[in-house]
Amino acid sequence: MSRTGFGDGSFWQCLFSPGSVAMVGASDVPGSWGFNIMQRLIQSTGLRIFPVNPSHPTVQGLPAFKSVLDIPETPDMAIIAVPALRVPSVMQDCAKKRISAALVVSGGFSETDEEGRKLESQVVAVAKESGLRFVGPNTMGHANTHARFSSLGFMGKVVPGPVGFAAQSGNMGSRIMQLCMNEGIGFSKFVCTGNEANIRLEDYLEYLAQDDETRVIVFYIEGLREARRFVRLAKETTVSKPVVVMKAGATGASIRAARSHTGVLAGSDIIYTAAFRQTGVIRADNEDELADVVAALVKQPLPKGPRVAILTMGGGFGVVSAEACEREGLQMATLSDSTLSRLDGILPARWPHGNPVDMAGMDTMGEQVVLNCLSALIEDEGVDCVLSLVALHRFAPMMPGAAYMPSQRGNTDARAENLKAVAEKARSLGKPVLSVGAMPPSLGEKTAVETPWEGFSIYPSPQRAARVLHHLFWYKRYRDNVRQ
Amino acid sequence: MSRTGFGDGSFWQCLFSPGSVAMVGASDVPGSWGFNIMQRLIQSTGLRIFPVNPSHPTVQGLPAFKSVLDIPETPDMAIIAVPALRVPSVMQDCAKKRISAALVVSGGFSETDEEGRKLESQVVAVAKESGLRFVGPNTMGHANTHARFSSLGFMGKVVPGPVGFAAQSGNMGSRIMQLCMNEGIGFSKFVCTGNEANIRLEDYLEYLAQDDETRVIVFYIEGLREARRFVRLAKETTVSKPVVVMKAGATGASIRAARSHTGVLAGSDIIYTAAFRQTGVIRADNEDELADVVAALVKQPLPKGPRVAILTMGGGFGVVSAEACEREGLQMATLSDSTLSRLDGILPARWPHGNPVDMAGMDTMGEQVVLNCLSALIEDEGVDCVLSLVALHRFAPMMPGAAYMPSQRGNTDARAENLKAVAEKARSLGKPVLSVGAMPPSLGEKTAVETPWEGFSIYPSPQRAARVLHHLFWYKRYRDNVRQ
Repeated sequence: MSRTGFGDGSFWQCLFSPGSVAMVGASDVPGSWGFNIMQRLIQSTGLRIFPVNPSHPTVQGLPAFKSVLDIPETPDMAIIAVPALRVPSVMQDCAKKRISAALVVSGGFSETDEEGRKLESQVVAVAKESGLRFVGPNTMGHANTHARFSSLGFMGKVVPGPVGFAAQSGNMGSRIMQLCMNEGIGFSKFVCTGNEANIRLEDYLEYLAQDDETRVIVFYIEGLREARRFVRLAKETTVSKPVVVMKAGATGASIRAARSHTGVLAGSDIIYTAAFRQTGVIRADNEDELADVVAALVKQPLPKGPRVAILTMGGGFGVVSAEACEREGLQMATLSDSTLSRLDGILPARWPHGNPVDMAGMDTMGEQVVLNCLSALIEDEGVDCVLSLVALHRFAPMMPGAAYMPSQRGNTDARAENLKAVAEKARSLGKPVLSVGAMPPSLGEKTAVETPWEGFSIYPSPQRAARVLHHLFWYKRYRDNVRQ
Repeated sequence: MSRTGFGDGSFWQCLFSPGSVAMVGASDVPGSWGFNIMQRLIQSTGLRIFPVNPSHPTVQGLPAFKSVLDIPETPDMAIIAVPALRVPSVMQDCAKKRISAALVVSGGFSETDEEGRKLESQVVAVAKESGLRFVGPNTMGHANTHARFSSLGFMGKVVPGPVGFAAQSGNMGSRIMQLCMNEGIGFSKFVCTGNEANIRLEDYLEYLAQDDETRVIVFYIEGLREARRFVRLAKETTVSKPVVVMKAGATGASIRAARSHTGVLAGSDIIYTAAFRQTGVIRADNEDELADVVAALVKQPLPKGPRVAILTMGGGFGVVSAEACEREGLQMATLSDSTLSRLDGILPARWPHGNPVDMAGMDTMGEQVVLNCLSALIEDEGVDCVLSLVALHRFAPMMPGAAYMPSQRGNTDARAENLKAVAEKARSLGKPVLSVGAMPPSLGEKTAVETPWEGFSIYPSPQRAARVLHHLFWYKRYRDNVRQ
């Protein structure tokens, strides 16, 4: 018996790992939904595709069927991209065919006007009667990277990884996914939830909570339709799996905009804030912050406490970063005498003997000096996490800007090993190490994803890194309190 | 008679546009201060350089002098990069030589300990007696792009432009400069103020206020030594020239860090906040925000009011952006009936007939559709500024990602002209147009600087763009109130 409330787990299997798909509205016209989605389906691995098109015998080289009813078997799912007025009858055909999962791409339903709302309730009625469940309408599609399956006709490639993501907006979903991928993070499942006439955000939460391929759950939310259920599920989930949300629509115009977007009521922001806080849900204020914290949840351990050590190569940057950390509720660690002695042995006498640890220009003397300082800070028992303003990524071979100083060239294998050893030390002690580029890194998607090892978290500014540490520490404390 | 309080303007001429420089501590050792600064001086245009080094007859191919006193003429300025203990006697030589301006790179003064403080007061005493004035000590140097002069041994190239910038930190100065250059913004003058033992931030404000090559003044501040004077000068200046600051050091650890950095007392943040607000000084919370608002001040007009129109290619992005604008105290413009009709003529019937203007996917139909919508919004009398979530930069030839859709290829000259016409219309009506990339733009320094026309302001997120509009509107209102 599944926990999902949909009879059994095979529904989710059909939806996210279909072996066969009916593509209703399949097209040969480049740029159309029916064309683009077909392209994605063809790229998916091991998928039997049944294009449905009443007026063409083949679509993109595959034999097409006039109706879903003409398909010689029952496909695992149907994707529907036809004008809104035709959707109810297509759904009836799907129901007759005993298809259990559908995805309705078509727009023109409750996000528009009264007529659209009526049309949507007709589609819902068909689903209710037959037991067929569907994503959307008004969705941009979904993907399961582990099954190499995607219906995302208007989005780029989804990089595989441990993040399960449901978004109440196609373009915000696409944007957030891109930002995460820029930070080297990939996805297990993605779904654009559309109008949620049938399957709702709460259902995806329930599903992703028990999905073994998903280690971190992410939502872009404009409004919840089953807030109480969300609260109950979130509370159960966050004990073992982090849930990160961005909730938009807290102000007048944005509430109105959300209504015309997916027909949702955005509701009172105060209530949402309270609900997230009480259930251990990490709330990011914007999409950059969301990507930042998700990247850290994937790559870093949770800090045991709020005490930060800062390693900087210049005074001003240390001042700004200490301020950023304190504004985020973190504390500047008091370094132990033995750590101070270790640093005395590494740095010139003029270093200011405090935290931030100002290397006073010594970072230019080569990475071993930096790594030795870093080790000293990581191993201090009074330090819970480290913020390195010396951009660690410049030491890593394959990274843009790596080894830009002559002293940092040399055997790249040995250099990568040194860096890796420090990262592994930090991980074994349960201490996150975040690095900030002195100059903002312009990492392309590809480079970030191909980063040679995982112990890496780079942020473009100390403020963004401090915000991440705030979230990690807040979540750790929440979990500790719940577990007691 | 100069307004600067330094006798006459020739002092600033000597400091920022020297015809001849004594480089005390000039060196042939790569990587040393005396080497790197010499390199910069040699790259400067039309400069006579007198290296001073007691033990080498030549430095970097130029004849060297054992002492400043041995130089056959009086150089316009001296740059001093010798150990701290030797600085007082070098300063005495400079005074004897009747040099009027110096820059003391050496560290080891009031930013360290009691001994350093004593040493600094000796240097100050020499200056006081002789009338010689100096930058620093503990400075990374200065630059005047219009005179093609730079003493910045440890920084990259400074791109010319209209921003005058004084920073109480070398590495934050360098970082902020890089962020501004990434946004296509260049500098008239730059100075790292160091410990400000003699020339203080307030002096640079007075100088930059009357400098014709400076249109926007920027400061990175850890603490002010003459706060009352700053307030008086800022009030006079902001009426005609914007002043943007980032003030760090508001929290306990950052105050302590600032003290060990440049010996400054960071002081109460509440007082600073009030002082900036009352004098029309725009305060940015972090370095990204600083670069963002400076870029807009250089490229955009000030909005006459807080009414924003948003152009988006998807609903969710519109929701998030409307929220960002309202959080920043802006208002969503109510579009006029005639604007709504114009948009009806451009967009498909399903567009939601409100602000944000959701193009409902029509941005993929080619740039003319986008530009037509943009024109309609700019020309609406109820609209004070426009936020375009359709990334305008993708239409510009030479920009990364330009014309990535087949429909947007074509005659690049004509396309650039169309875009330029809309930008010029907006400028003539005094309406800022900020553009947000659907995907974060990864503009390299070079590309941004080479942007073909100036009417461009691109921000990586709607939140950052909304923050910029907040600052522009706040500053406009301040100026309107003061002028009444």
